Parts: sequence; structure tokens; C-alpha cells
Amino acid sequence: MNKGNLLLAQSGGATAVINASAVGVIRQAIESKAFDKVLCAHFGITGILKEDFFDVSDITEDQLNLLAKTPSSAFGSCRYKLPNVSENGEIYSNVAKILEKYNVSCLAYNGGNDSMDTCSKIADYLKNIDHSCKIVGVPKTVDNDLEFTHYCPGYGSASKYIATTIEEIALDTAVYEKGRITICEIMGRDTGWLTAACSVAAKVGRGPDLIYLPEREFDIDDFLTKSEQVYRKKGHCLVAVSEGVRNSNGYVGADERTDSFEHVQLGGVANKLCNLVSLKLGINTRSIDLSLPQRAAAHILSLRDQQDALLCGKHAVRLALEGKSGVMSAINFADGTTVCSEIALCKVANTVKHVPKEYISKDGAHISPEFDEYILPIIKGEVELEYEYGIPRYFDNSKLKKLQIK
Amino acid sequence: MNKGNLLLAQSGGATAVINASAVGVIRQAIESKAFDKVLCAHFGITGILKEDFFDVSDITEDQLNLLAKTPSSAFGSCRYKLPNVSENGEIYSNVAKILEKYNVSCLAYNGGNDSMDTCSKIADYLKNIDHSCKIVGVPKTVDNDLEFTHYCPGYGSASKYIATTIEEIALDTAVYEKGRITICEIMGRDTGWLTAACSVAAKVGRGPDLIYLPEREFDIDDFLTKSEQVYRKKGHCLVAVSEGVRNSNGYVGADERTDSFEHVQLGGVANKLCNLVSLKLGINTRSIDLSLPQRAAAHILSLRDQQDALLCGKHAVRLALEGKSGVMSAINFADGTTVCSEIALCKVANTVKHVPKEYISKDGAHISPEFDEYILPIIKGEVELEYEYGIPRYFDNSKLKKLQIK
Repeated sequence: MNKGNLLLAQSGGATAVINASAVGVIRQAIESKAFDKVLCAHFGITGILKEDFFDVSDITEDQLNLLAKTPSSAFGSCRYKLPNVSENGEIYSNVAKILEKYNVSCLAYNGGNDSMDTCSKIADYLKNIDHSCKIVGVPKTVDNDLEFTHYCPGYGSASKYIATTIEEIALDTAVYEKGRITICEIMGRDTGWLTAACSVAAKVGRGPDLIYLPEREFDIDDFLTKSEQVYRKKGHCLVAVSEGVRNSNGYVGADERTDSFEHVQLGGVANKLCNLVSLKLGINTRSIDLSLPQRAAAHILSLRDQQDALLCGKHAVRLALEGKSGVMSAINFADGTTVCSEIALCKVANTVKHVPKEYISKDGAHISPEFDEYILPIIKGEVELEYEYGIPRYFDNSKLKKLQIK
Repeated sequence: MNKGNLLLAQSGGATAVINASAVGVIRQAIESKAFDKVLCAHFGITGILKEDFFDVSDITEDQLNLLAKTPSSAFGSCRYKLPNVSENGEIYSNVAKILEKYNVSCLAYNGGNDSMDTCSKIADYLKNIDHSCKIVGVPKTVDNDLEFTHYCPGYGSASKYIATTIEEIALDTAVYEKGRITICEIMGRDTGWLTAACSVAAKVGRGPDLIYLPEREFDIDDFLTKSEQVYRKKGHCLVAVSEGVRNSNGYVGADERTDSFEHVQLGGVANKLCNLVSLKLGINTRSIDLSLPQRAAAHILSLRDQQDALLCGKHAVRLALEGKSGVMSAINFADGTTVCSEIALCKVANTVKHVPKEYISKDGAHISPEFDEYILPIIKGEVELEYEYGIPRYFDNSKLKKLQIK
């Protein structure tokens, strides 16, 4: 009997647990015995359109365990937002034909806002043409900006890494009697979730003195006053700032990014603020951009985040097996335990969940203690790693088998 | 009977195991029962001159265990190179008087090249005035540029962090079908030891495609050719480069650092090379500066490095107790086991140990397999951490007791 195949696609910027979500999907697909083959698209939707697939039907449990600890999309990703059907119907009919050709009965799409938009459009299209393939979304983004899920897998591990790194930077920058004003730029163009995670280090007294999120208008004069006050008192000052902080003129870090030297990649807001501090206050500065390791540092995974990513991936397949389509698997916390639920993709797509006002202090430069209850469970627990040659052993995707087309 | 006190001072840029060395010194001092008190200078030599000391005589074993896993100088550091006696004899006589006043029978000084120079000058001065205080050096520097020691405590943990981080960056930057040329700047102004550590990630197939050290003249055209070749073949290219690479014009990253915008802290060589790649090759780039976490990331300590730091600290105190002065405790590997030895401070001071030619490939853009035998033992093993609120629990130096002056 022909049971159909499951197809997984990874999309958007990678995270430290995007492969844990994949393992959830693959494991559930294999365990359910509801599919003939388990396929993974090479480079997301691009791989679907090119009919470029890995066949992981025979993947071993050992491989899955290693994959679940490995950062960044093992099957490749893409940054491709589908046009609307009205703009380019051909792409949709191609996707439908390819799903038909490869007998795909479930497409699990793992990504963030844009990916859920893509996923939603495909689901709508297939529904309209009475295509039987079920489309399910699996949430993923370090930014944590997806609505309708308590948090996004990827955010927990990124936060654990950021809070740990900022704790260590705080220790390092406090060793001299007369130090500097150090400004750390944290990912988050539109939301401050990742920057807010620095508050965990501040809570134990080894964190930033000032924390700025894009949710509050950034007042440069107030920032200069506050950082100078801290510096005069302590001899050093550590500032955490979201890359996307803005004021009435737009992004504070935008000038360097959009001028004629755009290709120079000067970095953004931390450099700019350091420059301002030097000019206006005459105090030595250092700017640090935590950069890519924020989303790739699987050597310090949050156990909760990894486990929830697995659960969420499994739940997505279960939803498809229940006959549902056009839904995303979501995370809820019930009495501290993770319970997965579902939400219509059309509701999630293109939403942005901001850090609520109550998590930001009145002065706009700190995080309120109320945030603890939210962040602490999400960054809890450690994942035991395997080491080889003194560094973490990660999944080697060069050994994956491509689907042989008959 | 008056046994005298031991005084420890931490100096220069911090490392992830500088406190492990301190624990070696403190533990040996306490266990030997050869001292009345164990003191630590607040902010290195500055603390000595200001008579500002912590008294750690009663520190508990639990506190020492936590301190041995905590990055950055817990007792504060300084960047102060003593003038020669001929230039300013007063400082030396002040130091001698203070050591006398506080009954210091052993001064253990933990630092890099400049600190060993300071240490050497003090030892010479005291010897000349028949002062009985023993001066011993304890090596420390992430740069690994001290001669006469197999490696420097701090280098192992920094290398483990760098190799791990570059492995994760390599995975992250390979997820798109069409990626970028990513250039990572690694610490090392004069020597390429830290950058060379990236070769461990390359060894397992998840590392930089090209690695450049300051030991070889940097040929910009050759770099552009090689990085373009890799990019055209793989769709992405990862380059690791020492901050101090140079050519006949001096430091490659120097222009931005020394122009009238010096205070802007544009960063150095990675930004500059990205700019060049964009202009000359028209390929998208990303520059990443691994920055301070390289020397502060105690969340991924090398066990060997930490243990050797402890041994080296202990050995320094033993040297003093044997009546030696003006010597540095050094590390040797004998059949894979660490054996500490001693070396005259005057020999070590102001030396620079470069990466030997045989560790660099003929084309100057890779590390030879011969380097494995050197680096692998140094980054081996992991240290189990305590976690609190999901992040590493580190030593809280705000609870240290200051020496009460009678």
C-alpha cells in the first residue's frame, strides 16, 4: 500500500536547535510508520523547486541523537519568500506538481515569520486545488518574535549563550581600576527578546549596567547621561543594546549601514554609540558585536529549548496525521510543563511579538524582575555533548544520502 | 614565630584560567603552612603601591573550587609596566618598603611578557638591597607568546573556545546555496597561536577554508585569489585571520586604527578585508570579530589548561619555599604529563615566541598537520560547571575581605 512520503524543509536563518526540530519531525515520521520515505529538501523551498532531496528514511538513532545537538540547518536553508499566487501562480503549480510527483503526503516547514507566510500560502493553494498533501509549520527563530507560541525554539539556546557570554564579558571588563564603557550589540532588529536575556547575568550581579531594546524609543542624551554616571561611579560601564534600537529618525545604527560605504559592513549601533561616547564624553570605549555565534553556539544549548524543539517537531507530524493542514505546531507552558498545541498558519504569518511593556523598567534602560518568570525556564538545563579533538562533535551532513530519482 | 605573608598579584589582560593559577598559588601557600597570611593585591602592582590587599587566608575549599572555574582576574588587574630603576628608583624603594611593612616573604606575580619584566626588575632590585622577599612569576597569556614554557595557561581554553566557535560559524555560514565570504578576526597582534587553533575545526571538515597568521607576510592579491577560488567552488568561504597580519606596509588592519577616526574603533583587519573583497570581487561578505569572549569564555574551559594553570601556580610557591627568587614557574610536557620547571625571569621577560615555520603550510594559508601534536593535548578535556539561573555560577569577588590595616 502506498502511504506517501514526508518532506521536511528548513528555512531562514539557522538556530542552535533547528536540527532538534528536524529530529522531532523525522523521528515521529519514522515511528508512526505512516510514511514510505522521509525526505529533506536541500536548501529549503529552493530544494523543493529543484527536486533536490535527501532521503533520511534509514537514518540511525545514533545519527539522530547527534543531529539533535548540532547547530545550523543540516539540510541547508534558503531566504526565499514566495510571491502571492496572483503574482506568480506558476511557482505554486510547480510546487503542487513536485509534491504529487514525489508522493509527498506531508510537508513540514521549519522556519520563522516569513517561512510561515510561505507555508500558509502553499497550504491555501493546495486546499483550493483539492491537493491532499498536509502542510504543517514548525516554529523556529532566535528572535522569538512569532506570536501564538509561548516562545520559539532557538530563542532559549541563543539566550543562554548571550546571558553567559555577557556574564563573562562583564567579568572581563571589570578587572581594571579605570576601565571603559563597553557596548555589546545583540541580535534583534525589531524585537528586544535576545537583548533582554542579558538581564539574567545582571540579576547575579555580573551583567550589563544598562540594557536597551527596540521596543522603547532610544534617547541618545539619556543614554550618554546614564552611561557616564555608571562609569564615574564604578570605573567601567557595560551596555547591552539591540541592533534595532531606534528613535524618531529611525534605526540608531542605520547611518553607517545605509551610506555609500554600505559594503564596508562597519557594523551598526554599538560602533556608532562608542563613537558618540568618545566624542561627547571623552571616555575610552570598546564595541563588541556578539554576531553569528548567538544563533550557532550549540556548545551551550538550553536543554529545555532542545527538548521543546523536539516536541514541537513531533507534534507537527502528529497534526498532519490527524488530517490537519495549514497549521503550525506551537508551545504552551502548563504548570511548567511543555504542551504542544496548534495555530492556523494564516494567523501566525507575518506577526511580530514584541517584548511587553511590563518587562521593561520605567527608565527604559533595565529589564524588570517580572521577566525572570518568563526567561528562566526557557534557558534551563544543559545538554551533554560529545567531544572529538577537544571540540564538540557535530553531525556530518556530507554523509547524507540524496534521493535517487528513478 | 613570624613566618611572613604570601602576596599574589594578577596582571595584564585576563584569561579564563588566570584564577586557576591564583588558586594554585593560594592553595599551596595555605597547605604549606609556611605563611601567616595569604594576601592578594587589588588591581595588581597598583594595589601593592596603594597598599590595597585582600586577605584570603580563610578562603574555603568550596570558594577555591569555584574560583578555579571563574574567568578574569578576581582580584583585579593592571596594565602598568615598571620603569627601569635608573629612571625611577623611588617606585622600587616604595615596593620594597611595602613588602617589608606587610611582612611579605613571597610575592607571586601572575602575568605575561610585560609582567615578567616587572617581576624581573623587582627581583633584581630586592636582591641588590639584600631584601629577603622571594619573587616568583606565574605565566599567563592567551597569546601563548612566552618563551621557555611549553605553552601558557590561558592559551588552551582560549583555543578550545575559538576552535569550537569557528566550527559553529562554519556550520552557520554553509547553510545557503549561495553564501558569502566570511572573515573572522582572531586575537594575536604579533603571533598567530590563537588563529592557528582554528585548524582543529578545519581538521574535522567544519573550519576555515583559509587561515592567516602574522608570522607570514600577508599577500592581499593572493588572499583575494584564494578566497574567490573557494567561493566559486563551494558557494561560500570562511577565512580566519590574526588581527596582526602584516605586509611590507605594516599591519594590514592598521589604516582604520590609526587614522583620525581612531576613537571610532572601526575594528581592524576583518572589516578591511571584507571591504576589499566587496570592492574587488563584488562578493557579499560578513566580518566577525571574536573579541573579548576569546579570553573570557570559561563556560568551555580546557581541562588540561585549567589543571596546568593550577600546577604552575602551586609550583611557583614551591620554588619560593625552596629559597628561589627571580624565577618563573614553567610548563613542560614529559610523555604527555605536565611537569613544572623553572626559568630565570630575566630570560623570559620581553621574549616573543612565534608560531614555528613548520606549523604553517607552504602556501601560507593553512596550518600543517604537524601542529595537531602541539594543540590537541592543550585543548583536551572539559571542566564541569555549576549553573545558577541557567548560566554558569562564577566566583563573587564582592564578598572578598580586605586586609584590615592595624
